[in-house]
Amino acid sequence: MSQELGVTVDKENDIHEWYRQVVMKADLADYGPVQGTMIVKPYGMKLWSSIRSEFQDKIDNEVDNAYFPLFIPERLLDKEEDIVDGFGAEVAYVEDGSEKDMEERVAIRPTSESIVTDFFSDEIRSHRQLPYRLNQWANVVRWEVSDTRPFLRTREFLWQEGHTVHETHEEAEAEARKRLKQYEEIVEEHLAIPSVLGYKPEHDKFPGADYTYTIETLMPDGRSIQSGTSHNLGQHFTEAFDVTYEDESSEEKTAYTTSWGISTRLIGSLILAHGDDNGLRLPPTIAPIQVVVVPIYQDDNKEEVLEFSREAENELKGIRTEVDRRDHRTPGYKFNEWELKGVPLRIEIGPDEAESGTATLVRRDTGDREEVEIDRLGDRVDELMAGIQEQMYRELETYQEDNIRTAESKEEMLGTIGRSRGYVRAKWCGSESCEAEIKDEVAAEIVVLPFEEDSSPEAVQSGGTVEGECAVCGGEARKWAWYAKNY
Amino acid sequence: MSQELGVTVDKENDIHEWYRQVVMKADLADYGPVQGTMIVKPYGMKLWSSIRSEFQDKIDNEVDNAYFPLFIPERLLDKEEDIVDGFGAEVAYVEDGSEKDMEERVAIRPTSESIVTDFFSDEIRSHRQLPYRLNQWANVVRWEVSDTRPFLRTREFLWQEGHTVHETHEEAEAEARKRLKQYEEIVEEHLAIPSVLGYKPEHDKFPGADYTYTIETLMPDGRSIQSGTSHNLGQHFTEAFDVTYEDESSEEKTAYTTSWGISTRLIGSLILAHGDDNGLRLPPTIAPIQVVVVPIYQDDNKEEVLEFSREAENELKGIRTEVDRRDHRTPGYKFNEWELKGVPLRIEIGPDEAESGTATLVRRDTGDREEVEIDRLGDRVDELMAGIQEQMYRELETYQEDNIRTAESKEEMLGTIGRSRGYVRAKWCGSESCEAEIKDEVAAEIVVLPFEEDSSPEAVQSGGTVEGECAVCGGEARKWAWYAKNY
Repeated sequence: MSQELGVTVDKENDIHEWYRQVVMKADLADYGPVQGTMIVKPYGMKLWSSIRSEFQDKIDNEVDNAYFPLFIPERLLDKEEDIVDGFGAEVAYVEDGSEKDMEERVAIRPTSESIVTDFFSDEIRSHRQLPYRLNQWANVVRWEVSDTRPFLRTREFLWQEGHTVHETHEEAEAEARKRLKQYEEIVEEHLAIPSVLGYKPEHDKFPGADYTYTIETLMPDGRSIQSGTSHNLGQHFTEAFDVTYEDESSEEKTAYTTSWGISTRLIGSLILAHGDDNGLRLPPTIAPIQVVVVPIYQDDNKEEVLEFSREAENELKGIRTEVDRRDHRTPGYKFNEWELKGVPLRIEIGPDEAESGTATLVRRDTGDREEVEIDRLGDRVDELMAGIQEQMYRELETYQEDNIRTAESKEEMLGTIGRSRGYVRAKWCGSESCEAEIKDEVAAEIVVLPFEEDSSPEAVQSGGTVEGECAVCGGEARKWAWYAKNY
Repeated sequence: MSQELGVTVDKENDIHEWYRQVVMKADLADYGPVQGTMIVKPYGMKLWSSIRSEFQDKIDNEVDNAYFPLFIPERLLDKEEDIVDGFGAEVAYVEDGSEKDMEERVAIRPTSESIVTDFFSDEIRSHRQLPYRLNQWANVVRWEVSDTRPFLRTREFLWQEGHTVHETHEEAEAEARKRLKQYEEIVEEHLAIPSVLGYKPEHDKFPGADYTYTIETLMPDGRSIQSGTSHNLGQHFTEAFDVTYEDESSEEKTAYTTSWGISTRLIGSLILAHGDDNGLRLPPTIAPIQVVVVPIYQDDNKEEVLEFSREAENELKGIRTEVDRRDHRTPGYKFNEWELKGVPLRIEIGPDEAESGTATLVRRDTGDREEVEIDRLGDRVDELMAGIQEQMYRELETYQEDNIRTAESKEEMLGTIGRSRGYVRAKWCGSESCEAEIKDEVAAEIVVLPFEEDSSPEAVQSGGTVEGECAVCGGEARKWAWYAKNY
């Protein structure tokens, strides 16, 4: 716990400073000694472990875990030119000291497509091995030089990266879509954050991908954050690395691959999306502590209050509960601290409660208080856990719905983005230069071509999915694009 | 599966090549493209995940997980001079490219005492926070230049490193001992490998440690391998990094720390200790597949054999079972493959078995075969799992007991180590130069001062625990030392 308790700025007024304080004061992370790095503290690590085990459960039956080296020879990165272009300046290398006597220049992995596909080229022989699915939980390094912030943008972060090999483009496509759908479940159900799924524009795809899918979530400052991605890599990597297999009729075929990842960045989304002026607010699903019991006592009634607190704790089977028995802190201090740390429900137990056999429940999300008899406590807390989860999701859903606006001309787009926050939905001809015009003026870009708009490349190729004109250039429109400022 | 099935050399004759082939052919790992690195393949990763979850369970209630940056500023490493001396040549650094514009030289963590203790100096304020215990599951880098081998010695490996802070030397000591004991449980119970626990000699301690403890296991080539270590770091690091706390009477005190770790090296021990000429042998506790069912059929009885195999599988609740239904492989091929992969028990089911309602069980460890009726299958397999585990442990225990020899003079020591393998037990005066004489001549060193010999520094300070003369110099002996060649 930092010495100075409580967040000293409003989220609305200074979200940057608010975020920094919540991260530090809620004990989620600290700055590492090398600029742009972070120390994930135990409370923050519990959030990541929860996301990790939730996703691991989803893929357990289909995907094997493996571990690939942190070190990738530069020649492998160079094999896939788009990767070098895409990540170039951010790639860190191992020092070529004379003592080390290195044979070749060695990169520190920014992502593992190159080293994994190189492995596939040795490993994959026959159609019987396909589909072949691997995942790794690992650290990756992108030497960001500006705007680094814990969880949101750090030079090193933790993630999972899945890599799969398939016989056909359709299978690869189904795989990429399936994992994106699983990310949606994590984001919506586990983190209680509504999301928008769709394509990235052609010019903003992962280097070498046929399609890049994104799951976008809208933050309270009106900016969109990419909370996970999935790529149908087609034969781009398999051709560069010569990944072939023998099909059923013994013919040599080139395989198809996908890759997909979520990272500790999700914790950044979680903090931003749900927090308030008092600090973190955690949905019950992911909260390391779901209920905190705070006994309130004087010397002369300490024993019965603590005894009754124990009884209350015993009623909460299956709920992650902590009883805060610290003697050197006042109840008020404890209330503030657990609010700061986002615990979804507080139970106050004083001498009155101990005597009447009740407990006072206070919700973190709404501040609502209620008194509950001890023998109804378990059931009521179960109800509240579900209710809080639902309420936290609905709140963001309303916010998101209120912040999707349609604009019909460039002026209207600029005005809308400048004046308000959120997504601006506009017809688009598909050209990068139209997006660039908006980007140059208001630093917003196309963050997603949502599935719900049917902006798939196929639909668009067959004449486009939207009638009318591109809001920017007035040319023939082909799809609906969602613009936003982003993280 | 590699194309050429089966290990082509005897373990006894060429353990290096045998090891390489088992690692590759049993699909445990592959070489990474950068020299000295490895790709941990899914089957190998399952072994590490099993060790990880077993150890995590042991520490779950006491130790929090965290994650510290991979990157450590050189100035932090420099703060603890012994660390620089101890790891110097093996530390890799991030390239100081002009694009990166780095403020200082950045190391890639060889171990995290410096960065963690630096964090403690900010984090620890009060005695109320103590004991403070952290653990991280992470990759570490030691730029080894020679003799690299998958799992046993790689430039990057996976491990857990625990770091704790205490009020007193005694508490730190108890912590270091407790974790060593937990490592013993992992090694003996989970990996079925007998071990010897004790001190490292003064001159071979972890840089800066008061005491370094080791768990040593004897490999079939007679060399000892350090399978885990635990360090009582005393105030060495806390003084260098100024980690103080306020005690109960508000006095500022310097804290004590420990650190302890096990790594993917344990998988190397596991392979070496149990494997035989046919490949890997896995104890049931850690085996990803404990029982493989191999159906043996022709076209005309395929259906009933597969049906009966399913029945057999259903009898094996709680056992990690796989039914090998591959049509394109012969039963013989399958037998070899699963032997190579070390599956503890094979169940053969052919038309005769299907008709008589029995199954043929074949043990991987002894090769023993038996026929069992289907309704006794579950119970019998449970018995066998326990029996195989026990038998595999006993076998190594006998081997270890047979390979501890006592020597009374330098000549006898050299003769014994030269002639036979294993541990040579000798009286020692405590001087590094006596060990060096042995090391120079036969490349064996003191690997452990076992607890069972009561060679604790305290016991030794109070006059020594052994009467007589140092086997090497003839000076006054102080302790029993165990010499061995090591990994």
